[in-house]
Amino acid sequence: MLSGAILALDVGATNVRAAVVGPDGTIDVRRTARTPTGQAGDAVVSFILDLLRQARDEYAASGGRDAIAVGICAPGPLDAATGTLIEPPNLGGDWRGLALGPAIGDGLRLPWALDRDTVGTILGEWHFGAGRGSTDLVYLTISTGVGGAVVTDGRLLLGPDGVAGELGHMTVDMDGPLCGCGAPGHVEAFASGVAIARAGRSAVRDGSAGEPLKAMAESAGVDRITAEDVSRAADLGDRAAGVILAGARRAVAFAVVSLVNVFAPDVVMLGGGITRAWGEHLLAPTRSAVAEQAFRIQADRVRVIAAALGDDGGLAGAVPLVAARLPHLDTRERPTT
Amino acid sequence: MLSGAILALDVGATNVRAAVVGPDGTIDVRRTARTPTGQAGDAVVSFILDLLRQARDEYAASGGRDAIAVGICAPGPLDAATGTLIEPPNLGGDWRGLALGPAIGDGLRLPWALDRDTVGTILGEWHFGAGRGSTDLVYLTISTGVGGAVVTDGRLLLGPDGVAGELGHMTVDMDGPLCGCGAPGHVEAFASGVAIARAGRSAVRDGSAGEPLKAMAESAGVDRITAEDVSRAADLGDRAAGVILAGARRAVAFAVVSLVNVFAPDVVMLGGGITRAWGEHLLAPTRSAVAEQAFRIQADRVRVIAAALGDDGGLAGAVPLVAARLPHLDTRERPTT
Repeated sequence: MLSGAILALDVGATNVRAAVVGPDGTIDVRRTARTPTGQAGDAVVSFILDLLRQARDEYAASGGRDAIAVGICAPGPLDAATGTLIEPPNLGGDWRGLALGPAIGDGLRLPWALDRDTVGTILGEWHFGAGRGSTDLVYLTISTGVGGAVVTDGRLLLGPDGVAGELGHMTVDMDGPLCGCGAPGHVEAFASGVAIARAGRSAVRDGSAGEPLKAMAESAGVDRITAEDVSRAADLGDRAAGVILAGARRAVAFAVVSLVNVFAPDVVMLGGGITRAWGEHLLAPTRSAVAEQAFRIQADRVRVIAAALGDDGGLAGAVPLVAARLPHLDTRERPTT
Repeated sequence: MLSGAILALDVGATNVRAAVVGPDGTIDVRRTARTPTGQAGDAVVSFILDLLRQARDEYAASGGRDAIAVGICAPGPLDAATGTLIEPPNLGGDWRGLALGPAIGDGLRLPWALDRDTVGTILGEWHFGAGRGSTDLVYLTISTGVGGAVVTDGRLLLGPDGVAGELGHMTVDMDGPLCGCGAPGHVEAFASGVAIARAGRSAVRDGSAGEPLKAMAESAGVDRITAEDVSRAADLGDRAAGVILAGARRAVAFAVVSLVNVFAPDVVMLGGGITRAWGEHLLAPTRSAVAEQAFRIQADRVRVIAAALGDDGGLAGAVPLVAARLPHLDTRERPTT
């Protein structure tokens, strides 16, 4: 158990979240802002430090003790050891190569730990959420992008460079659309918010869109069609939008079947904004595909469930992340004399 | 280190191999026979016991000491703990539910350890072959079926039931042909010997085959066309056969890209009869696909290589398998007083 609260930071493609989190994963104070784009690295760091300081100051004003560390999660791939972002495909170029961990740690004069957003979330859900008690946990997040992380035999799958677990970048269709990473037919190229929005825009442009999607394009502009618009159009009976969503759900279901055959997990946990929006419309067909297509032992064992902590998974996960990477802050590690 | 030699058994879809293997992985004596099909479980066990006794007797006749255990690998899925085969998709029904481990152990009055063929091979290659020194090793075998096994962070990926690592059963094409396991578009449905032969027969039947494949069908009968025939036909300029092989290689390459993104291994090792037959014709395009499509850190780190032990991987792997599952036979575990 950590000896005090930590500052937590979750950098997403859409929002940046800062919070103060107690050793039990309780989130006391939070600040959210739109993720800065098109700014230089220095400006990004200043912006984030301001957000964290606001959270820290509000916590102090309410009588909280000083935070003992800062735990950060951000889009991968990144180098967790040096705290450096590498080439996050869903953030702009101003983030590439940014040494976010040291910059935040220096700015706050706190020890820091940083890892991929999905690693933060799986840690949060594993310790405090839907993954409690699991020994073999596969997490797939369907959001702006599609990402993942894996716990196998009670340990995080990290690989020699800490970058393992890019579950959104498995090919489900060799002839499929190009993914944001440049490769064809990844599950992210079907099921991410970016991919769904892009497919909706294409349907308008090539004339295959139904009236609901066309009307949205006329009122908002075709380039501003979002994944939410495509979902809404499908609800209004737009066939092209329905086909796009069916393709996204199918890609997720097939990817989960592959993951069940490969990892034989006890839990597959789906998370992210699109999972939250679709709920059982995504979970139920995924469970059916697993029951029909996966090997029997794997299929009989696994539970396919939704993440429980919503947007707070990564913030809560900053606690086990800090405890794992900065073990001198973990009182369990101290002699009990 | 084991204190003596073991009897090793490798049950394949085509051949059954028995051998005596030294603690250093050296294979002293071997016996090979066609895998029995269409026989009852008792007859299968008798057949295998005869083969193992022949190997044991020849070893004894040459002055070898008694084997201290029997290590078995067989097609998955299976229950390693009880030594029972479950539903191996490429063996006939007479193997289903067969408690092979106890039957062999009782018949030879030896302690036994049993695991999936691919687990045996990855252990053999990891300890004695192409995987030596790796901490994160992905093994894909392309043979009658397509299977795999994974070492991550220096440990076998087994999952809670010991059945993890079914790498041949990842979907690479949601609209692809049905796999032997019943699910669509798995890499096995494109690249296994069974799949290649089936595609060759279909090409003859639907008239798309070129002259070489047609001539083979006329001389041998369309139902006897093998994967080797399809390869030979492609070498002779048969376009349809070439398309089948290109599809198989592409499926392997895409699956390896997915595995590199997911596991971030230091080594991907390809093995099995088809890998041996095709060599660089399979390895080179797979390496190119990884370089072009996988995430940069993963792609820069990984070496894509061929297995080194050929058909002997599973036999050599019986040694680390016995050492891991029967630790009382491992002298490293004993106090050194």
